[in-house]
Amino acid sequence: MDNIMMDSDMLMEESLEKILELLENKKYFQARDELLKYNGVDIAELLEEVTEETDIDMTIILFRLLPKDVSVEVFSELPTDDQVEIVNGITDKEITFIVQEMDFDDKIDVLEELPANVVDKILEKTPKNERKLINTFLNYPDTCAGSLMTPDYISLQKDWSVGEALEYIKKVGMDAETVYTCYVKDSGRKLIGIVSLSTLVISDDEIKIKDIMRTDYVYENVYDDQEDVSEDFKKYGFLAIPVVDKEQRLVGIITVDDILDVMEEEATEDIERMNGVIDWENSDKGYLDMSVWQHVINRLPWLVILMIAYIFTGMIITSFEGRLSQIISLVAYMPMLMGTGGNTGSQAATLIIRGLATDEVDTSDVFKILWKEVRIGFLIGAILSALNFARVYWLDGQSAMIALTVCTAMLAIVIFAKIIGSMIPLFVKKLKLDPALIANPAISSVSDMVALSIYFAMAMLLLGL
Amino acid sequence: MDNIMMDSDMLMEESLEKILELLENKKYFQARDELLKYNGVDIAELLEEVTEETDIDMTIILFRLLPKDVSVEVFSELPTDDQVEIVNGITDKEITFIVQEMDFDDKIDVLEELPANVVDKILEKTPKNERKLINTFLNYPDTCAGSLMTPDYISLQKDWSVGEALEYIKKVGMDAETVYTCYVKDSGRKLIGIVSLSTLVISDDEIKIKDIMRTDYVYENVYDDQEDVSEDFKKYGFLAIPVVDKEQRLVGIITVDDILDVMEEEATEDIERMNGVIDWENSDKGYLDMSVWQHVINRLPWLVILMIAYIFTGMIITSFEGRLSQIISLVAYMPMLMGTGGNTGSQAATLIIRGLATDEVDTSDVFKILWKEVRIGFLIGAILSALNFARVYWLDGQSAMIALTVCTAMLAIVIFAKIIGSMIPLFVKKLKLDPALIANPAISSVSDMVALSIYFAMAMLLLGL
Repeated sequence: MDNIMMDSDMLMEESLEKILELLENKKYFQARDELLKYNGVDIAELLEEVTEETDIDMTIILFRLLPKDVSVEVFSELPTDDQVEIVNGITDKEITFIVQEMDFDDKIDVLEELPANVVDKILEKTPKNERKLINTFLNYPDTCAGSLMTPDYISLQKDWSVGEALEYIKKVGMDAETVYTCYVKDSGRKLIGIVSLSTLVISDDEIKIKDIMRTDYVYENVYDDQEDVSEDFKKYGFLAIPVVDKEQRLVGIITVDDILDVMEEEATEDIERMNGVIDWENSDKGYLDMSVWQHVINRLPWLVILMIAYIFTGMIITSFEGRLSQIISLVAYMPMLMGTGGNTGSQAATLIIRGLATDEVDTSDVFKILWKEVRIGFLIGAILSALNFARVYWLDGQSAMIALTVCTAMLAIVIFAKIIGSMIPLFVKKLKLDPALIANPAISSVSDMVALSIYFAMAMLLLGL
Repeated sequence: MDNIMMDSDMLMEESLEKILELLENKKYFQARDELLKYNGVDIAELLEEVTEETDIDMTIILFRLLPKDVSVEVFSELPTDDQVEIVNGITDKEITFIVQEMDFDDKIDVLEELPANVVDKILEKTPKNERKLINTFLNYPDTCAGSLMTPDYISLQKDWSVGEALEYIKKVGMDAETVYTCYVKDSGRKLIGIVSLSTLVISDDEIKIKDIMRTDYVYENVYDDQEDVSEDFKKYGFLAIPVVDKEQRLVGIITVDDILDVMEEEATEDIERMNGVIDWENSDKGYLDMSVWQHVINRLPWLVILMIAYIFTGMIITSFEGRLSQIISLVAYMPMLMGTGGNTGSQAATLIIRGLATDEVDTSDVFKILWKEVRIGFLIGAILSALNFARVYWLDGQSAMIALTVCTAMLAIVIFAKIIGSMIPLFVKKLKLDPALIANPAISSVSDMVALSIYFAMAMLLLGL
């Protein structure tokens, strides 16, 4: 153990086995002690495994044996199902304790997920003032700054000295979720400055807060979208950002740890949208927790829209049917030309949509992008054309004119697909919509139609159909 | 201004105009003062705009007028191009100052991007000890924990009292990038505990560090992948995580603000891979900064691989060519059936790949997922089949048997595509590869072949071809 460290996952795996064995032999206290080697997040993970391997009753027993302060942290980390079971399995006194001790924003997260009857049971045990505050917070829309914030922050007075401020923090500090940044408000509860805890610690005790507070802080409004909030965290690298209401009064703060979840959610949303899945409910439910119907509802709309688009593709083919039956071997190259058009178009769309999301490109770059994609399309198209000539002429043994038809169509299709794929997202962005919503399936289906039209036009031109 | 707050973007827009006007009238000091209303990140953004609107010389003039401490922060926020120009445009004394004062990890980031001759110029001015440390850091692979960390952290001794620790922090604190967590090492430089600044502030001065330090901390190894590091930040919600070498000695810490960038990079990589773009160089260059050739090299491989796959699609069609020419109208429905198969398959693949990335699903869930997708596929397939019967029979006026062929093929294709789309990523994950690498284009092309085979089989069965 001196030179080699064990992997923490392996350690937890071993502990889990030990705990399960102890539980089987009814050695509950020893199992509890094994759990207590870990921090709250890991204990919650171990308890989840215990529920899976045995049943929820074992988890409830272990949970009740945890020291009170640990149980609060573990509770907020458990999955909703387990939380419900635990609330139903413990005494009202225990519930009251846990709810009172939880960080405010964890409390809101938990209450948002629990079923209404359990929430009522919990709210009953909450003091009236806090109940009111909880209800306000529960009412913020799910994706706005208000739903991310916590009212637990340290406020200081501008006329206090650093010494007084540190005394005050010492007194109230334990309740505040984050004390790394302190906020200075005027008499009207308006935010006027911020001071970091590190500034306080390294400043002399006599200095006044107003002389060291920073006034060039960044803030959010309660109804700002969570995506903009996370942009600001990324841009400025702050640990917390204050949130104000429309009267500019400080109502809460957002801490960076909650932003990590937001970033993951937003990336998931973009990825799903780009591939034709729409999360109508904006839910953060996982794949397995969603019902079959919910999946159907999220996936069906794009498929139906595309089905309608395919009516036009079908019309293009039908109008060419007579000519096609003269040289039926042209049909064999249709999927390749359409598929390559779709794929190369969605490559371009993907890069532009992501570039817009991360602020690397902007709608004003339209001509730069167009010129770049035309050149990229020409190079890729030329290489793929050459490969195809070889395939059609030598491998498939078709006539040189058919090979030439496929090749020239390929070159034109790739260039057009790159143009379509890169320009449509910019256009959608210009309309102030989310470019991810246009989705790669849509880009593919437009490319499909263009590809077919180009292919048939080339066939008429070169093969004299 | 009392009740309505101005949007900060609008404010910056106004300031930019003001600055440009002042520069035109050669009122450099007034322009500088306008800049100084903002924080370092925003000043860098404004200077970028100034470079775009006028030229880099204006930016250099303004930059040199900034107070020394501000200029250091602004410099690390500027884009690489501007940094190079500034390094070439200022005196060696100014360079030395800026480099010495930058946070260590910003310094590494800057040096990694600058051209070699500029880096040499900067390293010349760096004290020997630090030069050695910089070279060590520059050698860590780009995507490992080592490349993210900073050696600027506060270390405490376990036998110190809280009072002594706070005194020490007051003395050295200004140099440490993050003092919110302090690290306790033994005589062999091994990490033995952590103490947060807030714990220090709220504890009594006489208490010993060893009595309040936490030993259930999480750490990373220098060569751990940055994706795993960001997983830990997400899981535990820490502001900083210590990094140890293989002898378990503390070598640096990673702070959460750097993780936000990692998460964005990782999401971008996944999105690009899923849509058939491979970033071979693992570069964090933006779309516009990459050369046309670089784009071609990143996009071509998948297109060529798919081209080969289309040879098989072509063979399937060719083998059916004779029959197809008998009922040429079957060709018109090929794109729709193949396209729907591809789209519905990549919907499933997208959800599973993302679920694997965010730990919502696991390879052990394979049967749950299979059962879910079969049901989803059946429902979606049934709905799309019904719509298609209406289209083919009434709208296109085809025979009932052709309509039935298209419909039954559709149902089977959707179910198969959902199975293929969901199972391939799980299989790739099982092989310990990145499921995103399998890419939606590949899923589509497999679905294409399955779709054609099913369609032709149905045609033979129902139309007696």
